[in-house]
Amino acid sequence: MPEPIEITFLGTGSSTPTPQRGHPAILIKYSGDHMLFDCGEGTQIQLQKARVSPMKIKRIFISHWHADHFAGLLPMIETLHLQNRKEPLEIYGPEASRFVDAISELSYWGIGFEIKTKDCGEEDMEKILDTENYEIHSIKVDHSVPSVGYIFKEKDRWNIDTKLAKKYKLSGKDLKIIKEKGIFKGIKLSKVAKLSPGRKLIYSGDTRVSKKLFNAAKNADLLIHDGTFTEPMESRAHSSVKEVAKLSKKYNVKKLVLTHFSRRYKSVKEIEKIAKKIFKNSIVARDMMEMKL
Amino acid sequence: MPEPIEITFLGTGSSTPTPQRGHPAILIKYSGDHMLFDCGEGTQIQLQKARVSPMKIKRIFISHWHADHFAGLLPMIETLHLQNRKEPLEIYGPEASRFVDAISELSYWGIGFEIKTKDCGEEDMEKILDTENYEIHSIKVDHSVPSVGYIFKEKDRWNIDTKLAKKYKLSGKDLKIIKEKGIFKGIKLSKVAKLSPGRKLIYSGDTRVSKKLFNAAKNADLLIHDGTFTEPMESRAHSSVKEVAKLSKKYNVKKLVLTHFSRRYKSVKEIEKIAKKIFKNSIVARDMMEMKL
Repeated sequence: MPEPIEITFLGTGSSTPTPQRGHPAILIKYSGDHMLFDCGEGTQIQLQKARVSPMKIKRIFISHWHADHFAGLLPMIETLHLQNRKEPLEIYGPEASRFVDAISELSYWGIGFEIKTKDCGEEDMEKILDTENYEIHSIKVDHSVPSVGYIFKEKDRWNIDTKLAKKYKLSGKDLKIIKEKGIFKGIKLSKVAKLSPGRKLIYSGDTRVSKKLFNAAKNADLLIHDGTFTEPMESRAHSSVKEVAKLSKKYNVKKLVLTHFSRRYKSVKEIEKIAKKIFKNSIVARDMMEMKL
Repeated sequence: MPEPIEITFLGTGSSTPTPQRGHPAILIKYSGDHMLFDCGEGTQIQLQKARVSPMKIKRIFISHWHADHFAGLLPMIETLHLQNRKEPLEIYGPEASRFVDAISELSYWGIGFEIKTKDCGEEDMEKILDTENYEIHSIKVDHSVPSVGYIFKEKDRWNIDTKLAKKYKLSGKDLKIIKEKGIFKGIKLSKVAKLSPGRKLIYSGDTRVSKKLFNAAKNADLLIHDGTFTEPMESRAHSSVKEVAKLSKKYNVKKLVLTHFSRRYKSVKEIEKIAKKIFKNSIVARDMMEMKL
């Protein structure tokens, strides 16, 4: 069984938060790493509700610098400082260094740990993180200010078929070598193991419907997408539930989670009905909703 | 009957907010004006819970620039911008112009209304606002960074005694003149009216116990004071419930509300017991607690 990818939707509202739907923030836990995607106002309180210490957060990915996506950064950084954090914090985003500098200027406590920034979005698509178990890519999206979405890609894995390994008389040591080198004593890895492709998650951030993003989301295990309005609103730099559901179906997304709802919608049930009618594997995010992949 | 002064404690926690006790923010409504004293993370959501539109807020008084006291400013300003505010917003505080400039730099939406700032705290005590019905003074306090408390002083009022007015045969028009000029046809205002002293409220912000502040709080109708710890903690730039309760009694404060509790205290009931034992007119603030004076 692969390790679960755990997702908590900390905030699922948009520019104006409400008591029911806070500013955007998504927590992803995988392979011992805790990551935040966006960090709106109230994120540190939502983390407390999820019983996750902010000290565990290793990296934060900001989609763009509208306050609803980052207003929780400064107060969380100050909390980390007061809790005596020493481990560096990584912050990714378009113009990340400029904005993190400006935010740090506002800190009267000072910041007793290093903040490492990485500017994203200069290229259409870019690998911004490569770890043993997963990669993260940024992808430019179409909003009113420089904005990116993020692609979380678990690495593909070769799973040894023990029956086949026995047949070829391979020891545990042999298997280690074959996994590393791809071949051992003329036996190719593909003869004794099956490739298990890594899972793929995409978070759109705020965006108009973007073909580029859907191309990247093809066959994705999970797409978390801007669903600000139910109907297309050409004057706004956001997506509609109808467009997104339609394209998710077309691009064979396995599961769609819509988020970032305008506060004009009192009931998300209605939104979910609209989405499911077009693409049955649609879910509407609620604050504190948890998912496991 | 004088017009009520309505107070809502939007947030009563300290540096690290909890779901039960948010970052500091106090709403005061008086004479048609809505004012905020401090504006920590989550203030705009707390305002929604109190059913008060942020559009109504006319002025904000920041005690000092630790993030727990101002992290809600930028997201609230962006909400006001998106709601198309045109009315200026006044922001008071030590170094207000410097910090409001830095915050405005972070706004990618731009700000479609004027923000008027007033720097406070250069003098020990200073009248920073004078309206028809009330004044506000800042008072320097003793914290780890430049910090002020605020004194809300309702103006004294002369209330005409209609019996005496009749005795002196004063018409409505005469009374208007006597109220304006203090004398009419040799009759002094004090002969026909009684002086009703205005109410006085003090908010300490974050401070070590300060004699200066208690001198100003003498006979105050309400003192809202830093009560971060129950016992004196010399190493910290805050007050203790015990010290504050003792001095409130000594300086004849009519009502004391303690706030800004360290999250180490799980139960505020215990804190209230400690305070009341020393000074019976003590109350411990809770988030969303409302008071009328």
